[in-house]
Amino acid sequence: METRKIYSRNSHSDDEDDVSDHFQADDDDEILIQTGNEDTTATPSQNSQNIDLEEQSPVFTVRRRRNIQSNADAFESLDYEVCENILERNERTTFSYNLRNFERFKLKKDFARWCVFIQIGVLTALLACTINICIEELSDLKYSFVTDSVATSILGGDLLVPYLYWVGMSIAPVIIGSALVAFVEPVATGSGIAEVKCYLNGVKMPRLVRIKTLFVKSVGVVTSVVGGLAGGKEGPMIHSGAVIASGISQGKSTTFSRDLKYFRYFRDDHEKRDFVLGGAAAGVSAAFGAPIGGLLFSLEEAASFWNQKLIWRTLIASTISAFTLNLVLSAYNGQYNFTYYGLFNLGKFEQITFEYFELPIFMLMGITGGLVGALWISINTKINNFRRRFIKLKIGKVMEAALVAALGVTVAAIMIYTINDCRATPVDPIKHSVKMFCEDNEYNAVAELWFQTPEKTVRSLLHDKPDSHRILTLAVFTSVYFLLSCITFGLSVSLGIFIPTVLVGAAWGRLVAMFLYSFFPEANFLNPGKYALIGAAAHMGGVLRMTISLTVILIEATGVDTTFTFPLILTIIIAKWIGDYFNHGIYDTQIKKNHVPLLHWDPPKNHQRKCASEIMNSPVICFKMRENAGYIYEKLKESKHNGFPIVQDVVGDKRGHGRICGMILRSQLIVMFMNKYFEENRKYWENEVTIHKFRDMYPRYPSIEVSIL
Amino acid sequence: METRKIYSRNSHSDDEDDVSDHFQADDDDEILIQTGNEDTTATPSQNSQNIDLEEQSPVFTVRRRRNIQSNADAFESLDYEVCENILERNERTTFSYNLRNFERFKLKKDFARWCVFIQIGVLTALLACTINICIEELSDLKYSFVTDSVATSILGGDLLVPYLYWVGMSIAPVIIGSALVAFVEPVATGSGIAEVKCYLNGVKMPRLVRIKTLFVKSVGVVTSVVGGLAGGKEGPMIHSGAVIASGISQGKSTTFSRDLKYFRYFRDDHEKRDFVLGGAAAGVSAAFGAPIGGLLFSLEEAASFWNQKLIWRTLIASTISAFTLNLVLSAYNGQYNFTYYGLFNLGKFEQITFEYFELPIFMLMGITGGLVGALWISINTKINNFRRRFIKLKIGKVMEAALVAALGVTVAAIMIYTINDCRATPVDPIKHSVKMFCEDNEYNAVAELWFQTPEKTVRSLLHDKPDSHRILTLAVFTSVYFLLSCITFGLSVSLGIFIPTVLVGAAWGRLVAMFLYSFFPEANFLNPGKYALIGAAAHMGGVLRMTISLTVILIEATGVDTTFTFPLILTIIIAKWIGDYFNHGIYDTQIKKNHVPLLHWDPPKNHQRKCASEIMNSPVICFKMRENAGYIYEKLKESKHNGFPIVQDVVGDKRGHGRICGMILRSQLIVMFMNKYFEENRKYWENEVTIHKFRDMYPRYPSIEVSIL
Repeated sequence: METRKIYSRNSHSDDEDDVSDHFQADDDDEILIQTGNEDTTATPSQNSQNIDLEEQSPVFTVRRRRNIQSNADAFESLDYEVCENILERNERTTFSYNLRNFERFKLKKDFARWCVFIQIGVLTALLACTINICIEELSDLKYSFVTDSVATSILGGDLLVPYLYWVGMSIAPVIIGSALVAFVEPVATGSGIAEVKCYLNGVKMPRLVRIKTLFVKSVGVVTSVVGGLAGGKEGPMIHSGAVIASGISQGKSTTFSRDLKYFRYFRDDHEKRDFVLGGAAAGVSAAFGAPIGGLLFSLEEAASFWNQKLIWRTLIASTISAFTLNLVLSAYNGQYNFTYYGLFNLGKFEQITFEYFELPIFMLMGITGGLVGALWISINTKINNFRRRFIKLKIGKVMEAALVAALGVTVAAIMIYTINDCRATPVDPIKHSVKMFCEDNEYNAVAELWFQTPEKTVRSLLHDKPDSHRILTLAVFTSVYFLLSCITFGLSVSLGIFIPTVLVGAAWGRLVAMFLYSFFPEANFLNPGKYALIGAAAHMGGVLRMTISLTVILIEATGVDTTFTFPLILTIIIAKWIGDYFNHGIYDTQIKKNHVPLLHWDPPKNHQRKCASEIMNSPVICFKMRENAGYIYEKLKESKHNGFPIVQDVVGDKRGHGRICGMILRSQLIVMFMNKYFEENRKYWENEVTIHKFRDMYPRYPSIEVSIL
Repeated sequence: METRKIYSRNSHSDDEDDVSDHFQADDDDEILIQTGNEDTTATPSQNSQNIDLEEQSPVFTVRRRRNIQSNADAFESLDYEVCENILERNERTTFSYNLRNFERFKLKKDFARWCVFIQIGVLTALLACTINICIEELSDLKYSFVTDSVATSILGGDLLVPYLYWVGMSIAPVIIGSALVAFVEPVATGSGIAEVKCYLNGVKMPRLVRIKTLFVKSVGVVTSVVGGLAGGKEGPMIHSGAVIASGISQGKSTTFSRDLKYFRYFRDDHEKRDFVLGGAAAGVSAAFGAPIGGLLFSLEEAASFWNQKLIWRTLIASTISAFTLNLVLSAYNGQYNFTYYGLFNLGKFEQITFEYFELPIFMLMGITGGLVGALWISINTKINNFRRRFIKLKIGKVMEAALVAALGVTVAAIMIYTINDCRATPVDPIKHSVKMFCEDNEYNAVAELWFQTPEKTVRSLLHDKPDSHRILTLAVFTSVYFLLSCITFGLSVSLGIFIPTVLVGAAWGRLVAMFLYSFFPEANFLNPGKYALIGAAAHMGGVLRMTISLTVILIEATGVDTTFTFPLILTIIIAKWIGDYFNHGIYDTQIKKNHVPLLHWDPPKNHQRKCASEIMNSPVICFKMRENAGYIYEKLKESKHNGFPIVQDVVGDKRGHGRICGMILRSQLIVMFMNKYFEENRKYWENEVTIHKFRDMYPRYPSIEVSIL
């Protein structure tokens, strides 16, 4: 490849000839790169002779974003720092002498941004409605079929046929969903919350926010929930919201190879990140009908970057999302006011109060929640380690998912068969009540727990009357579901962890109330629903380790009085503290296991005293202001860095000792190569090059080898 | 003064002799300063000859933190960036070979931090309780006295005596409060929210967080509210929380000249800021019984810096605060469960719902709120400009406050006298019902609005039965209170803006419902309480321009269903948008009027394209690594900067052209001067100097002239 000069314009001097005079084109072997960060001329000086640090001591490399695994899926960073340069500044300076135009451009961009956030809210809610309705209808179909089959077969005494039906109708959808995830888009596994968190932290997660991923995720979550796996649709909703946000904001899709030419000014990592944050909030909001909870979730768990305006925009997205969901589901359910319980999707609590002396009980439950949560995470981690080592084939993953589905059904069937917990049928009958061996006016309380989606079971546990369950039933159910959810999270299916966690917590919370009640039968404060709620909070605190967003989500999803905020916060914070003593929260554990180089708020243990220079790669690859194109090509080819310092005052080839005066991105260099922005043919491209040239390729740039073809 | 050498230790080399060899003490006229940012030696080089920027063009100074006013109260910055240096690193490296100790130190600090946050919550709540109870009791006393006097005098037909009583009992406390503020501590004026916001943004507000200020604020707010001025105690609570937080976290008080030697590691601006944020949240929480609202208020309105851990700590402080308040007030009111309405201090709403077609009405109310709010701010600004120009004497300020108090009473008296809005006495009688010219079983509805604290009036407006007021009464009351609150905010008294804003909003919101009702008498959705709430939200949105925290505070303070979140958010956001079109929110207006150099999230209009170099002072004052003490002394004396760049590679005296390698604070230099940390007597201080030497003086350092005495 020829050696040429690359030149991008100077910022401060309006007279460009002046600038080019500064940089005398005296050496043909160099390329001239000039960033807008300094106005100084590029004459090398005798500086930095004494900074021989890099040569002096081979710096010990501790940890970096890339190459932490030796394999090819090393992670890259996103470019969240706005890369200030002359072109970017020119875009603003176009309006230099016309401030009004500049204000108008700003207003237009602001308006477009609001529009995008509103669209994110609406579309996320619509997707949530679709998923919701699909799950409801298909589950209804499945469980009514099985219930009918039980009702017929029980007369003959042979329950094998309904059992087989049940297994079949569970395995089939799970296989579809699992195969989709395993073969089509593995990044759609699990809840996606951890991945979205990494994305928002600045780690490039390949294929995370593509439309294909959204499709697999949506179908995957419907099939898995219908298949009866111990998981919820809430986590995936958050991921879906993020994908929708990313898609809308870009105005183009790589999957469909379409470019609508909309929103071109939103095409950088920085802008996209803000939209993705809004999408995640809208997802939570749609999942729980909790607009404020959604916003807080984004702030507490997901966001690593934050500013005040973003709060307002995110709030709009999540409010619109909750409202749209409410509207559509109300209409779907034939209710013409806003009373559809969609807004309280864990069921609305009537007024619940608490007494002073209950606080110690809640605190104990918080401690239990922390312990149990830590245990859950530890078991789950072990199972996933096993999985990682032994189940490597895609077909194996699908088989495993089917096996777990069958296991769940089998355990449930055994429980229903052996535990004869008969209860009088209430006045308003349960949807899929199973009589089994009960009397005519009774139903099997165990079957009720299993014959519905996990959400509905949670609702039952929170709101059922005090004597709806036997202690034995609940105890067995709690342990079984605890283990099932442990096994399920990590399967190759799209499923969230939220609902099973609430479920297990609510179950043991209810157990606590029942135990206490058996000792103090006259204690009228022992409302089992209240204890189920506290149990759910404690268990979630122990597993998820969120505090405020969890509190608000629970308040919004159950409509409890705000007076109840204090016990909820108390329980959750204690659970979090206890849990943190043993291990990280489930999302952080997952991130760590996947070797994602997430940057936490605090430096990791043992690294508190490290300096940046001890962590960075050495020797640093940097380019001079005027650099040889061949050199750049070689360096881009041999390294995988995404950004390179630009230095000046370089003596000979000792670039590492130059004075830093800016930064250039790999993507920018690649665009420069592709468009042949070399110094020698400058007159051809000088007037046409704008920041759009660099943005239009976003987000996927070719490799350096391809770029020069 | 002698010329000596100042030396603070090197970071990386463990062998200190090695370091001193680097810096040959060959020139007696220089002082050696070494920051820990670079390991390079200090030999000057030929670099930077070509960076003659500063000489080339006199840089246009646009805006800086200091000297924006030409008078002496120019503002200084706080040091929120942790100033990394060798001593600070040594504090950590002490544990270099004993990681366990280091972890223990970290744990201890963490634990102490939690303790402080809990104490902040408790103490803020206790102060809030005290203020609350004082106001309640004194107001009770006042209004029952006046009511009795009216009841006696009305028989004789002469109402002058009760009027004079009323005026006297209003003026007296206002004069006390106003005199305290004017003569003792002027920084206690107003709500203090704007000042706390500036503090958290990084502007040093003199005397803002002192105990004396707290005292004046507390007494001031009690007297002003009892005096019947149109203001609330909520804003001052936030400021009080901030002072308490700052006081507790430092373990010493300058007012009392005591140093408890506690929490010495929290003695820097950075740590203190986090506590102050927690204190502000605890204040909101105590004022409204809104723990989550308090946290969000801190995040949305106050905080300019934020991290995830801070959320949790702030949440703890605000939760503890709300809980303590509830506990104490419940006990005080003789209720032994948590049912004291303190948690809903705007009165608990029963279930309220809304219909689709009400949304446009709410949106219109939002627009109205925005317009009215902008108008309010504009009038208030004009009045305050007038005040600033013509009322300069302290005694004048006190007189003015007394006058406004008398004016309020007079207007109220005229209203009560002329408008005969008689209503049947309800079954549960009102506390201070006034009969005036009404029949025996009736009371005067106008007097009811005036004869109580503003909080209680808000409660009445939100919860009174539909036919409690006449349209005329409310219309007159709304306009009068609108103007009164306009005049009041800016007086030399400690009063917040929150409650009068809610009051005016609730009043016109209720008016809207009454108007609509008179047109559509069969519309049963026209619950006037609901419209009062929406009106309050709209008006607050228009005046305060907060969104999410306001929504959550209203939800927590009134206990409405979370289903009602959507209309509240909608109204508030529209009000904010409309208001923002005309002017800034009240706090930002106040900040602007006080010429506080607050750094907003976005650059101000017209400054979008400015570079830092265009804004900064020039020529820059910087010091060499090894600097002449006399030179430092001179520069400190002639400038008011708080921080100075340290440069190396300086040729001759061209310090401005050196290579920057760190930063030193004025306070650090002063401590070095005071302790005579010069290079030549290095062996005496070398082993004793630690970071604590620099922290112990915090937060008040002597001037440079004093330091060398």
